[in-house]
Amino acid sequence: MAAVTAKKNNPNLKIALIRKQDKAVIPCGIPYIYNRLNSVEENIMPDKSMIDNGVEIIIGKVTKISPEKKNVAIKNGKEIKYEKLILATGSNPKKPPISGIDKAGVWYVDKDFDYLVKMRKAILSSRQIVIIGGGFIGVELAEELSNIKNLKISLVEMLDYCLMMNFDQDFAQAGQQKLVDKGVKVFTKVKVKEIGGDDKVEYVALADGEKIKADAVIIAIGAQPNIELAKTAGLTITKQGAIEVDQFMKTGQPDILAIGDCAQTKDLIAEKDCHIMLASIATTEAQIAADNLYALEPQNKISGVVGAFSTSVHGLALAAVGLTENRAKLAEMDYVIGQAETPNHHPGKLPRTEKITVKLIVEKGFPNCLIGAEIMGPDSVGEMINILSLVVQHKISIFDLKNLQVATHPLLTAAPTVYPIVAAAQDAIKNIENET
Amino acid sequence: MAAVTAKKNNPNLKIALIRKQDKAVIPCGIPYIYNRLNSVEENIMPDKSMIDNGVEIIIGKVTKISPEKKNVAIKNGKEIKYEKLILATGSNPKKPPISGIDKAGVWYVDKDFDYLVKMRKAILSSRQIVIIGGGFIGVELAEELSNIKNLKISLVEMLDYCLMMNFDQDFAQAGQQKLVDKGVKVFTKVKVKEIGGDDKVEYVALADGEKIKADAVIIAIGAQPNIELAKTAGLTITKQGAIEVDQFMKTGQPDILAIGDCAQTKDLIAEKDCHIMLASIATTEAQIAADNLYALEPQNKISGVVGAFSTSVHGLALAAVGLTENRAKLAEMDYVIGQAETPNHHPGKLPRTEKITVKLIVEKGFPNCLIGAEIMGPDSVGEMINILSLVVQHKISIFDLKNLQVATHPLLTAAPTVYPIVAAAQDAIKNIENET
Repeated sequence: MAAVTAKKNNPNLKIALIRKQDKAVIPCGIPYIYNRLNSVEENIMPDKSMIDNGVEIIIGKVTKISPEKKNVAIKNGKEIKYEKLILATGSNPKKPPISGIDKAGVWYVDKDFDYLVKMRKAILSSRQIVIIGGGFIGVELAEELSNIKNLKISLVEMLDYCLMMNFDQDFAQAGQQKLVDKGVKVFTKVKVKEIGGDDKVEYVALADGEKIKADAVIIAIGAQPNIELAKTAGLTITKQGAIEVDQFMKTGQPDILAIGDCAQTKDLIAEKDCHIMLASIATTEAQIAADNLYALEPQNKISGVVGAFSTSVHGLALAAVGLTENRAKLAEMDYVIGQAETPNHHPGKLPRTEKITVKLIVEKGFPNCLIGAEIMGPDSVGEMINILSLVVQHKISIFDLKNLQVATHPLLTAAPTVYPIVAAAQDAIKNIENET
Repeated sequence: MAAVTAKKNNPNLKIALIRKQDKAVIPCGIPYIYNRLNSVEENIMPDKSMIDNGVEIIIGKVTKISPEKKNVAIKNGKEIKYEKLILATGSNPKKPPISGIDKAGVWYVDKDFDYLVKMRKAILSSRQIVIIGGGFIGVELAEELSNIKNLKISLVEMLDYCLMMNFDQDFAQAGQQKLVDKGVKVFTKVKVKEIGGDDKVEYVALADGEKIKADAVIIAIGAQPNIELAKTAGLTITKQGAIEVDQFMKTGQPDILAIGDCAQTKDLIAEKDCHIMLASIATTEAQIAADNLYALEPQNKISGVVGAFSTSVHGLALAAVGLTENRAKLAEMDYVIGQAETPNHHPGKLPRTEKITVKLIVEKGFPNCLIGAEIMGPDSVGEMINILSLVVQHKISIFDLKNLQVATHPLLTAAPTVYPIVAAAQDAIKNIENET
């Protein structure tokens, strides 16, 4: 994204992209290689737009950055000079300190083509799979694998419910229930004690004594910034383990920028460091870095991230942006809730009518801005959250949101009289007025 | 909406809603009574929220408003006093001055339960139906009826394509093609000369000599404000034939407000009268009227309407907000276009992947605001347009739209790297920069 944008901004630039592998996988597509995509090959990030725009692709592992010499060293000994360097080294799966973690049959959600090909084969030839971690990736993997006959899937989550990092209880519970309905055994509020077996995985033992048979284990407890290279350049690393950047995506080193999972993000609402790793944030950052690359006065900046997420679990879409109520409570914010539940078609008697549930978290006190939102329902929820993401990003008051003029249609949306975002805004305002 | 909101705002108010009929139909659901809903009965606006909130429902036809006496006269002779009066008399179908228009077998899209029951029966017992008018209602009727076996549907539209009042050519053409693919005979760029037959409709003759056999004709050339009652109250009527209101929805007469199709709207962008009749505008206006009903200083206002529309034609959703390029050209605005076309899933190899097409119309010159947008593709388009409706309403710059942080998901949205709204914003910016 950065390479293509920079080249589009200025076609005269000579731009090279260096990457370890011949084939780059699409990170968010990884859960779907098992069944829906039916191969890792179908989940390749196309190089077409780079090639079309004249970006040179170099396959090789960069081992060292020398800011003083302004070059990078590649494993085979070659050195490449740069005027400007953008680090987009991404993140690596976290490895938990669990006894038995190094046994054969333990797999990670690694963004590596060759690894994923091997992993896919191993998973599909297994019978009993235990997924450790019930965040987005863990849930999406469980969902995908539960569509495959003859696989027994278990999922272990430390928190009260799956997805609890990004949703309040009602939403998390509804998402989890979809997995349970499809036969996934979900173990919550419990830690893993041990991954057992001789040299190969045979079971996963939980702290409460439960023992789950397993011939494959997938670790999905999150990722950490890949800052190995950044360290060779002497870049500053934040407390959250990411590369320190300003709002123009510049690091402390002249002419080195960093973007994506490896770069620190700041929360737009709390105005403090809060490391969120999301492809859509990486994309925005990539554009900003490209826009600012040769600018004497940087024009484009990111004021903070809002964390807009969505997922889909057996037909139920769940999406969130900003703070959950749980997080607002923890941060001791003064907030009210606005809620609404509406059919997604009107009249509700139309075929394929489903329910949309909206929850808004609104900061009390002028101008009463939206600081968080959760929605669940049919697929359209995946775009509805982006209305609310815009509202959070532009600090639009809930009183303005109440007057939002929306396009509605019987077959496409809720009725105008009960459009759920507006209805939830009305509910929030009623709660503000009741509490004042 | 106004009654319920006013009652929710102040439960101590005594509120009565007077309407002609026992059953109120849902206007936007009318095209779907023939097949998807399978009856008019399934398209009734529920009275539940009025009853639950203690709104009294009076069935009767109001014949006169007397502002000086502050009462309304009902047909049976009864008079009802009011402190505040909200007129929500809606609109009636336009009747074109076509020869033969009064023949039996000519029908209108009238928002009247009893009429629709009769009309539905007549249409379903017909064989050859001609729809006059290819706007939203005409197209939706043609679409719905084309799902019914043994009905031959023709549609006559004066303009170059159906839906041309709200879309530019590419979009209008794509929508029209969906009808043609389903067997609807579409006649464009031609006027109706005559509705022929003895006393009952037998054919529709077009100006170019074409003669279409018909045993039923549906007139769908639009609606006009129902201002009959407003006239009895001496309210000012605008050049566009609607009740003049200020941005608080107040008419010139003290304590009389007007909302919905019967009330004049102002265009937010052009800042002049421009009468758009949309349920979602009516809904916003209803809330504003209710909020301002007893306010000494009106708090809530509408600064103008943006006209956010959507429709669905055999699986293709089409949506628009603000100006089309055609209209921007007519208004001699200085604008650029931004376009993008993206699969709605990522990777594109996922099942049920379809194409989303976005066109943005951006006013040139600081702050480069979005003044119009069109989108077509799968159902999610119905909510994507509401992101852009918010952008138009809040006059957000295209440069900010480019940095929009969106939630994306393989099964729900386009890829973050090519998210079509952002990609179209990038394209518009490139065009701004190229032309500067």
